[in-house]
Amino acid sequence: MDKKVQVTIIQIDNYGPWTATLGYDREHHIQMLQASLYSELQKEFSDKGGLVFYNRFDEMVAITNGIGPEEHKGIQDNLARQFPVSISMSTGVGDTPYQAQMAASKALQQTGSAQSSSRKEILVGEYLENGLNFVQVAHLDVDGITQSSTDVKSSYDTSRVILNIFSSLGDAFAKRGSLVFYLGGDNFIAISNGIDREFVKSVLDKVGSSFGLDMKGGIGKSTNARRAAELATHCLDDIREKKVVGPVFSLSDLN
Amino acid sequence: MDKKVQVTIIQIDNYGPWTATLGYDREHHIQMLQASLYSELQKEFSDKGGLVFYNRFDEMVAITNGIGPEEHKGIQDNLARQFPVSISMSTGVGDTPYQAQMAASKALQQTGSAQSSSRKEILVGEYLENGLNFVQVAHLDVDGITQSSTDVKSSYDTSRVILNIFSSLGDAFAKRGSLVFYLGGDNFIAISNGIDREFVKSVLDKVGSSFGLDMKGGIGKSTNARRAAELATHCLDDIREKKVVGPVFSLSDLN
Amino acid sequence: MDKKVQVTIIQIDNYGPWTATLGYDREHHIQMLQASLYSELQKEFSDKGGLVFYNRFDEMVAITNGIGPEEHKGIQDNLARQFPVSISMSTGVGDTPYQAQMAASKALQQTGSAQSSSRKEILVGEYLENGLNFVQVAHLDVDGITQSSTDVKSSYDTSRVILNIFSSLGDAFAKRGSLVFYLGGDNFIAISNGIDREFVKSVLDKVGSSFGLDMKGGIGKSTNARRAAELATHCLDDIREKKVVGPVFSLSDLN
Amino acid sequence: MDKKVQVTIIQIDNYGPWTATLGYDREHHIQMLQASLYSELQKEFSDKGGLVFYNRFDEMVAITNGIGPEEHKGIQDNLARQFPVSISMSTGVGDTPYQAQMAASKALQQTGSAQSSSRKEILVGEYLENGLNFVQVAHLDVDGITQSSTDVKSSYDTSRVILNIFSSLGDAFAKRGSLVFYLGGDNFIAISNGIDREFVKSVLDKVGSSFGLDMKGGIGKSTNARRAAELATHCLDDIREKKVVGPVFSLSDLN
Repeated sequence: MDKKVQVTIIQIDNYGPWTATLGYDREHHIQMLQASLYSELQKEFSDKGGLVFYNRFDEMVAITNGIGPEEHKGIQDNLARQFPVSISMSTGVGDTPYQAQMAASKALQQTGSAQSSSRKEILVGEYLENGLNFVQVAHLDVDGITQSSTDVKSSYDTSRVILNIFSSLGDAFAKRGSLVFYLGGDNFIAISNGIDREFVKSVLDKVGSSFGLDMKGGIGKSTNARRAAELATHCLDDIREKKVVGPVFSLSDLN
Repeated sequence: MDKKVQVTIIQIDNYGPWTATLGYDREHHIQMLQASLYSELQKEFSDKGGLVFYNRFDEMVAITNGIGPEEHKGIQDNLARQFPVSISMSTGVGDTPYQAQMAASKALQQTGSAQSSSRKEILVGEYLENGLNFVQVAHLDVDGITQSSTDVKSSYDTSRVILNIFSSLGDAFAKRGSLVFYLGGDNFIAISNGIDREFVKSVLDKVGSSFGLDMKGGIGKSTNARRAAELATHCLDDIREKKVVGPVFSLSDLN
Repeated sequence: MDKKVQVTIIQIDNYGPWTATLGYDREHHIQMLQASLYSELQKEFSDKGGLVFYNRFDEMVAITNGIGPEEHKGIQDNLARQFPVSISMSTGVGDTPYQAQMAASKALQQTGSAQSSSRKEILVGEYLENGLNFVQVAHLDVDGITQSSTDVKSSYDTSRVILNIFSSLGDAFAKRGSLVFYLGGDNFIAISNGIDREFVKSVLDKVGSSFGLDMKGGIGKSTNARRAAELATHCLDDIREKKVVGPVFSLSDLN
Repeated sequence: MDKKVQVTIIQIDNYGPWTATLGYDREHHIQMLQASLYSELQKEFSDKGGLVFYNRFDEMVAITNGIGPEEHKGIQDNLARQFPVSISMSTGVGDTPYQAQMAASKALQQTGSAQSSSRKEILVGEYLENGLNFVQVAHLDVDGITQSSTDVKSSYDTSRVILNIFSSLGDAFAKRGSLVFYLGGDNFIAISNGIDREFVKSVLDKVGSSFGLDMKGGIGKSTNARRAAELATHCLDDIREKKVVGPVFSLSDLN
């Protein structure tokens, strides 16, 4: 059987209606709560080999190969013990990350609306068996952004460039079913099962040149997201330090 | 004299080199640290009437009218007591938020590079005198996103729509010197001193129709960011509950 | 009129029954929640000039001179937005800290039992008017505990000595209506309105000699707890560095 | 071979000198940092089957059966990535918890003074092999403390009774090499390898009657601390709900 990626959609239950109970002077509270929830979920999932991305803050996306239903239940319970809100989670698997999150989304939608007060602490979806786990992570960044932008342009202008790069990367990778997330600074991550090194290189060339910038990428392949990200970061650091030839390098710990 | 907006750029000191000391298996640590730092800064600034936005995570933007140099110093010291990294801050003022962040960026760049190990805990820039403070906040969202997207499309497809709306709003508001930040879900905030209600309405019409969606906006005007956001959220809730006629409504607590 | 101290009792609502809902494998969750709640309350109260002590963890004691009912309400609301539990608070005033906490305890008890599910987010008691605020703090420690105990005895034996010193200090200060709290390490704090320097010295002599140890104390007097603690710590540091003659020194910023 | 308990002493490195760098207005910062550190350590160790106790805040005690040197190293590294201070840890094993902490203390003391600036991120001591792990936990509380004290006495008077019970329990259990820690409210935990049910009952009878109170205890025996605490809490809940006959009941998941 083909090896696949496993994606978990994490949704805060009944979030819109709950935030409305906080009164009008609420935005700073919402921002703090979202950041605390994300930090805690990242702690929980990364301890088990996964990685979580902000996505839309009230709905996060985790790459969860190797993390089963009981561990998901444990995380869901832990969150409810620490926060005034609870979460629902739905897990999907697929050859591409796009397919996996689509499966997860559909399973969650069948349990009711995200804004329904009666839909609470749902845990649905499909999990991969051991032996079928595969995650490919591409860690991407811009060469010399500090020199070309941070230290010379205004803060907001740099941010707008980064946002447009993010959007362009998302478009390019979407064609092959990869998901792109923003990590902060000039760093992006593409969950990119099934994409080869040449494709990554061609995207970086095209996107980089359209912004007049050079980009580089490290690719990591492993059985779980955290380990794949570690290998991808290893590649990127090696390119930066000119230990290997860029702009794209790849490492795998799979046979 | 004209009333102005005050913007503070917050940069993590020597962040790239510091993260490299964490080893290759670091991305989950970086994400947790960034979220914790943001949450703490939001707590500190909102307690004093300000608001902080993620921006690029390693460089945050705060709207800080009414918060002076000593309070900035106190926040800087508090952060250094809680985290393994320190921050530099630069404050600028302007008729438009864009001008204010430009001034802050320039002042910060003159103290050295963001990635320099010798540039640490900088506090520079200009502060507004009492009586000159004015912040306009527009809180924007999409009508019925749960029904049109969250509950029917895949999670990632919804996120890509939101990202593109974010980019389009940024483009449109940039023409008048406003800064747009993403708040999570389908919520955006435009720091928009000097923009009138008609302009906001025209942007929402244009951006919304290009995505086949309806958008609405609440505008708040006050002497500080948190209070302006409160008024903006008040307007948006009133539109949602059909207490006032949308798609744009405005409240001010200024004479 | 005489100047007084203001004490706030903070009780987690319906805490016993709530913890029971966590299942048998709960003690680590309870410990994390208690620590997070305390840290957040310390942040909230210290920002306003107060100080909070652990006391019994599910019931904390804050010295809150200068912090009024609206600020208490704001803190209560903030906590409920961050945690799965809520708090009730009762405030009392007195010539001595003991009298103040007694008044606060009685006011709280009249609203129902601490373990009643129907008693929730109570805010009762009496607040001091401006101009009547006075807090005296004595910061006490043991000379050379690292040399005499930490570096030579077992960890638990050192802890038992500290616990017994704590108990003895509590007994001695109780005679004059002072409250003693443990701060960690070899540090204690006595909220000690109405106690003179000679009394503090005699207690330290007596307690210290009964354990074969020397003790010292810094006394701070001010209009709020945080400022009084700052002055007390200032004194203690000055004694340590032999800038002043110990074992007891006192500073006041009152006229 | 006999089964043993494994204890880890956790010391904040160079803590006294570090706190002095915070200035005189520091006590609230210290309290927040200590609480955050403890919460994070509890999270880390409990995820791996351990439990951490406050002890003296700057020096914590963890029961760490089943947690090896690499996991300790991982926790040490994680802490340094989140906090402005680092920790040293020393692990000891023994037939009794007292012996285990004594061994850990000695190993740590041989690496230098707790207040030495050159002693940093030490990791020393001895770890148990698989198959030799045994932890016995007694979870103790007072019957009806809410009715007899919380709801009728002043907050501080109740705290003083609890402190004295704590001290008495410590004395009684010390005779058999058990360690007693305070959990909050009216809850205590005795790490009590080698103690039988009759001894626990006799201590509770003696201590309880000297305060005019009834006490009860649940005893759990397992291969790690968290699981033993779960069983102990199970027993205590069963006694409370009169499912079993108290005042002491015991459960084991060992063969």
